[in-house]
Amino acid sequence: MNPVRMDNMTWMEYEQRVKAGSVVFLPCGATEQHGPHLPLGTDALLASAICEDVAREVGGIVAPAISYGYKSQPRSGGGQHFCGTTSVEGATLSSLIRDAVREFHRHGVRRLAIVVGHFENQWFVTEGIELAMREIGEHSGMEVMRAEHWEFCRKETLDAVFPDGFPGIALEHAAVIETSMMLHYYPQLVSLDRIPGHGPAQFPVYDMYPARTAWVPSSGVLSSAKDSTSEKGRLLVADVVAGMTKAVRHEFALDEQRGGQPSL
Amino acid sequence: MNPVRMDNMTWMEYEQRVKAGSVVFLPCGATEQHGPHLPLGTDALLASAICEDVAREVGGIVAPAISYGYKSQPRSGGGQHFCGTTSVEGATLSSLIRDAVREFHRHGVRRLAIVVGHFENQWFVTEGIELAMREIGEHSGMEVMRAEHWEFCRKETLDAVFPDGFPGIALEHAAVIETSMMLHYYPQLVSLDRIPGHGPAQFPVYDMYPARTAWVPSSGVLSSAKDSTSEKGRLLVADVVAGMTKAVRHEFALDEQRGGQPSL
Amino acid sequence: MNPVRMDNMTWMEYEQRVKAGSVVFLPCGATEQHGPHLPLGTDALLASAICEDVAREVGGIVAPAISYGYKSQPRSGGGQHFCGTTSVEGATLSSLIRDAVREFHRHGVRRLAIVVGHFENQWFVTEGIELAMREIGEHSGMEVMRAEHWEFCRKETLDAVFPDGFPGIALEHAAVIETSMMLHYYPQLVSLDRIPGHGPAQFPVYDMYPARTAWVPSSGVLSSAKDSTSEKGRLLVADVVAGMTKAVRHEFALDEQRGGQPSL
Amino acid sequence: MNPVRMDNMTWMEYEQRVKAGSVVFLPCGATEQHGPHLPLGTDALLASAICEDVAREVGGIVAPAISYGYKSQPRSGGGQHFCGTTSVEGATLSSLIRDAVREFHRHGVRRLAIVVGHFENQWFVTEGIELAMREIGEHSGMEVMRAEHWEFCRKETLDAVFPDGFPGIALEHAAVIETSMMLHYYPQLVSLDRIPGHGPAQFPVYDMYPARTAWVPSSGVLSSAKDSTSEKGRLLVADVVAGMTKAVRHEFALDEQRGGQPSL
Amino acid sequence: MNPVRMDNMTWMEYEQRVKAGSVVFLPCGATEQHGPHLPLGTDALLASAICEDVAREVGGIVAPAISYGYKSQPRSGGGQHFCGTTSVEGATLSSLIRDAVREFHRHGVRRLAIVVGHFENQWFVTEGIELAMREIGEHSGMEVMRAEHWEFCRKETLDAVFPDGFPGIALEHAAVIETSMMLHYYPQLVSLDRIPGHGPAQFPVYDMYPARTAWVPSSGVLSSAKDSTSEKGRLLVADVVAGMTKAVRHEFALDEQRGGQPSL
Amino acid sequence: MNPVRMDNMTWMEYEQRVKAGSVVFLPCGATEQHGPHLPLGTDALLASAICEDVAREVGGIVAPAISYGYKSQPRSGGGQHFCGTTSVEGATLSSLIRDAVREFHRHGVRRLAIVVGHFENQWFVTEGIELAMREIGEHSGMEVMRAEHWEFCRKETLDAVFPDGFPGIALEHAAVIETSMMLHYYPQLVSLDRIPGHGPAQFPVYDMYPARTAWVPSSGVLSSAKDSTSEKGRLLVADVVAGMTKAVRHEFALDEQRGGQPSL
Repeated sequence: MNPVRMDNMTWMEYEQRVKAGSVVFLPCGATEQHGPHLPLGTDALLASAICEDVAREVGGIVAPAISYGYKSQPRSGGGQHFCGTTSVEGATLSSLIRDAVREFHRHGVRRLAIVVGHFENQWFVTEGIELAMREIGEHSGMEVMRAEHWEFCRKETLDAVFPDGFPGIALEHAAVIETSMMLHYYPQLVSLDRIPGHGPAQFPVYDMYPARTAWVPSSGVLSSAKDSTSEKGRLLVADVVAGMTKAVRHEFALDEQRGGQPSL
Repeated sequence: MNPVRMDNMTWMEYEQRVKAGSVVFLPCGATEQHGPHLPLGTDALLASAICEDVAREVGGIVAPAISYGYKSQPRSGGGQHFCGTTSVEGATLSSLIRDAVREFHRHGVRRLAIVVGHFENQWFVTEGIELAMREIGEHSGMEVMRAEHWEFCRKETLDAVFPDGFPGIALEHAAVIETSMMLHYYPQLVSLDRIPGHGPAQFPVYDMYPARTAWVPSSGVLSSAKDSTSEKGRLLVADVVAGMTKAVRHEFALDEQRGGQPSL
Repeated sequence: MNPVRMDNMTWMEYEQRVKAGSVVFLPCGATEQHGPHLPLGTDALLASAICEDVAREVGGIVAPAISYGYKSQPRSGGGQHFCGTTSVEGATLSSLIRDAVREFHRHGVRRLAIVVGHFENQWFVTEGIELAMREIGEHSGMEVMRAEHWEFCRKETLDAVFPDGFPGIALEHAAVIETSMMLHYYPQLVSLDRIPGHGPAQFPVYDMYPARTAWVPSSGVLSSAKDSTSEKGRLLVADVVAGMTKAVRHEFALDEQRGGQPSL
Repeated sequence: MNPVRMDNMTWMEYEQRVKAGSVVFLPCGATEQHGPHLPLGTDALLASAICEDVAREVGGIVAPAISYGYKSQPRSGGGQHFCGTTSVEGATLSSLIRDAVREFHRHGVRRLAIVVGHFENQWFVTEGIELAMREIGEHSGMEVMRAEHWEFCRKETLDAVFPDGFPGIALEHAAVIETSMMLHYYPQLVSLDRIPGHGPAQFPVYDMYPARTAWVPSSGVLSSAKDSTSEKGRLLVADVVAGMTKAVRHEFALDEQRGGQPSL
Repeated sequence: MNPVRMDNMTWMEYEQRVKAGSVVFLPCGATEQHGPHLPLGTDALLASAICEDVAREVGGIVAPAISYGYKSQPRSGGGQHFCGTTSVEGATLSSLIRDAVREFHRHGVRRLAIVVGHFENQWFVTEGIELAMREIGEHSGMEVMRAEHWEFCRKETLDAVFPDGFPGIALEHAAVIETSMMLHYYPQLVSLDRIPGHGPAQFPVYDMYPARTAWVPSSGVLSSAKDSTSEKGRLLVADVVAGMTKAVRHEFALDEQRGGQPSL
Repeated sequence: MNPVRMDNMTWMEYEQRVKAGSVVFLPCGATEQHGPHLPLGTDALLASAICEDVAREVGGIVAPAISYGYKSQPRSGGGQHFCGTTSVEGATLSSLIRDAVREFHRHGVRRLAIVVGHFENQWFVTEGIELAMREIGEHSGMEVMRAEHWEFCRKETLDAVFPDGFPGIALEHAAVIETSMMLHYYPQLVSLDRIPGHGPAQFPVYDMYPARTAWVPSSGVLSSAKDSTSEKGRLLVADVVAGMTKAVRHEFALDEQRGGQPSL
């Protein structure tokens, strides 16, 4: 039994922890191609693992992950022409988030952190939160954080991970950051020997519809994952977990001594 | 690595198996109170486990579970007044299923089995399939099965599991069937010592809105789970897995000798 | 002029009765094939007739019936491949019910009974009520009952109607119960001589999409209606009317002596 | 049994007539206050009666009426502040029409006449038809007519009905035209002695929201119905039935000698 | 800089004027064919110009125009088969209006005038306002006027503009009224020499779907614009501006001496 | 008359140019606070001006701008708590774009460039395009470009504009880039003397809901616009126009010698 997973708790255990002020974490992933070396569930798996690590730090609860995300775009996830990428309409994702936020509010949750693990989800998750918050009303006391987990990687760490210079988050799909994090959390799901050797994708600054699939490497990898290591994954994850833990404690005014209890 | 889980496969492995004609299984669960002895994730956990067992039999693939289901109703799941029950609008669930079916079709999947593990999901899952199939068109060759897993329990088994007579599926929420199945698949998540001792709930043949919460036992359990055993779970699961395997092979014309290949 | 039909009343008469606390009944039917011997309007006609009978008992009002229902399913209504079956999207039905409940609330109605006469409607009607009630708020004092009328048939009556044993409600589409009730209420609309002689349909415990139309008898009748009689219809209707009358009086706390007035 | 009502036919009778090319008529009414002398169902009752008269002329079929219409507006129907007026969202009405048109198309209907009996319905009915036709495609051969029945009243008849000059359709809510038509079709539902004596409502050329309810006579009648007679109703209905019959025959190319058969 | 245009103001200027009670005007136009002599933007251009004139009179603010309107209909705008006519779904237009009204309410606007310049917009604009007002609640103090600008043309002026008798607003698409108003406001956008010489369109009193495009003159002009002059435009516009100014002052209780300030 | 503005053309002129293969440009702006020195219409005004410049280069057509955009976010536009910011739901914006793309396709447009001038619009515009393209089908030959105009600013130019180093696009709301571009295109709408003197906003890497309004400078400006000049605007605009012109010519295969004609 995993002591932070909501789906492993009885409703009575959950209720008790919610009443005590626990933060609820909702991982928002996707089912999306991640090259020949990473599994389709990468985005949901990483977001869940990170949420669990942070939840352990702050006495939080991790709700079941959103496993289907918004449509993959060529420049950030390869695009919708790949087999296996299983995406939902923007309105579907926003509705799902809206409904979940509304339900957590009904439970008495007042501290909710939605952790996005799939770049394309960000705006439809935002809309879902906005829709729920308008319904809930301004004076409910409920507060929601939305964070893309990779944003907590520090410059120092990125400099260490990319000794030749960090090429920017744009091409990091199925590349060094995600592969290293997966090596840290789920080494058995990574096939290092299948990492493609081709160089980074070259994209213009705009998008075309229908997608110009010729722009995207046929492997689905946007830049090389060759230099990924479990150690790099450990460093990156450490940043993310520490940064998110600090942010959660700060924004939700948790007393660090008491784990999950309100600080007042 | 779990060899039938889609989220553990790379997109290339998935594509290869889809091209070979593999059946894709989509478990549709919920996050819903299941009394003081079963976890909130029971419906998704059971549907997933059953899908994995059947997928192993037929060389299939199990897609990530739908973890949030339609609103719990007093007479079948206790109702929406319980803390922890986290439900979505009917339209959200239908959209999610519609989008997923549409995507599986794009992948080339022509054999899709949607396995419902939460009673209240059934009709909104049906609508999602209907919406997708109309879009996909009649001549696509895609076929979808929708099954509630407990429907495959045979009368002989129910007679054995309920020596005093099967009281009917209506009150089986968090009761003997679900508890026994959970003891079979996830014994570490069942707290036998917390099973409440009260008798079965008494419901009229209609519903009232707002829900008459006094009709529902405060434990959330609709009839006693006292007689649950792992062995009963094994028997029930065996029925379900065998029945669903047979149904899938029959309806999708799979060659039993070749597992996952079309029979022609 | 029919003294319980809302569409026959002026708004002033209606307002007076609503202010006096009358129960409003909303029949929810369908336009659906009912074999060669029953008319397409069977579900709406029966639900309306039953509502009128109950309304007469309790001083209630019957609103115009919902005449188009959710999509017919093979195992319960024959399916969508029949000519004449005229169905609406799930979202359309839910919206219609939501809007109607909201309007009755605006009128001052605080006791609303929605009587479902078409099996497939049940969950989308439920969703419509849920959506309206959330908008209306918990403290409005409005209460809504949702009932499938056939659920009020007592075991004793079913034993009398089916001397060889009641085969279950599942196959009762256009069969003995509906045909007998129609003989009771609308004998001129029943063609006894056209009742097909074939045995009951055989269905598996799951559904396939596109519908396997070969599973469904081409007549649209799911089990024999041969033994239908007007007298059986009278018995069944008597149960339903008595049961629903009792339920309405009980749940809405009507004083039985005063018909339609609140009991306090 | 009414030989033109779809809800009184079996599906086989309906199918036979549809295959023979019969026009299907769909009356679109409302549940709306019509003053102290006309019933709430006036719009649906009149549209249905007119459809039945025309259907008898052309061998057509009358589908069950849409009984709940778009929101009543002060200048055309008195407005939404009256008790008894039971309206639906614009999107609900459009969806209902879209779904119905789609289903009639599936049945093989290629000639559909939607007859609007409630002024406010017109544009949402139009949108429903537009949405369905786009889905059905341009080359289906299906043709839909949308008509507001009162538009077929001829100038000569209006001159005869209003000897002091026709004040225009705008204020005809629950006034001479509707009351006379109701006296013709449903005299038992008209209370001539309750017709209010006040003069016509005075409206500006714009609308205010929230509705300025003081603009609307408290009776709900927008101009006097005092001069209504059954004979005037007969004249008006004769125009409408003749005009609509001619329009249907002309637009759908029906052979007048053969009633309901295609002219080729 | 245009002193009444919202898009030319800073948010601080706008806020100051809203706090002082200024009326906000929202022009609702379309992008629709207007014959060979008027531009596609006619409806939005005229509505905007009129709003600006009225706003100058009452110290108001003109918000950016809605430039895409509801689907053009053959009898009022020529129909959707013309190139250049660029229309939106009914639900899109209603949502846009709903969202805008909600936002103006948030700003503190309590006097909003929505000026429709495209006939087909009227009902979907109404629905948008209704949806917003229900959300905002009855006691917000916000008031919204909806007006079709041509409704303020006085009979005397129409008699002067049409010496042979006003044929009615129905066929005035791209005809004398619109062309004359455009000559008044935007003479450089009118090509008088391209006005087609054909007589007025002849329409029945009903609509057909798919549109009978043969009913509509191929020019897109529904009746002759030959007699249009700038002077007629000046007269018509003077009526509209004066009428709307008076209506706004009256309904919103503006003190005529103080321009834009509340009268209390 | 503006020769590239669609709303200034007759439908016949527009049709002729569309048939000749002209690119249509759709500017997508917003009505959003831009500090005390820039007008509320900044995003729509800039996107329109840039579209017109590019259209002149390639013989294109500029459709009326989308004037209301997606909800302003604190870290990119200051947030929804500012007066004057007038935003729409995500679904409204996506529907509007979907409808417009569908209509341009009906016109025969096969080259459409949607130019985003408001950061928050990007993903809902993407969804609108995706929805339309799925409906239109893969083989229509229609191609759509979506571009955020600022992405065409070259590094050399940014280095020149920001001699102390470009702080990144994130804080550029109402800052040097937008203010300089406005000075270039609309100097009369810029109040240089009102530019606030405060330093750049400090934001964490995540968002909180309800918005932490204290994070946002009360002026609405996210970083200093003090160094804005018309000359910098000219340089930036030159980059954007040149870059977009080149991209449009390249992607839509326009023959540079022939302006607006297909290259074959």
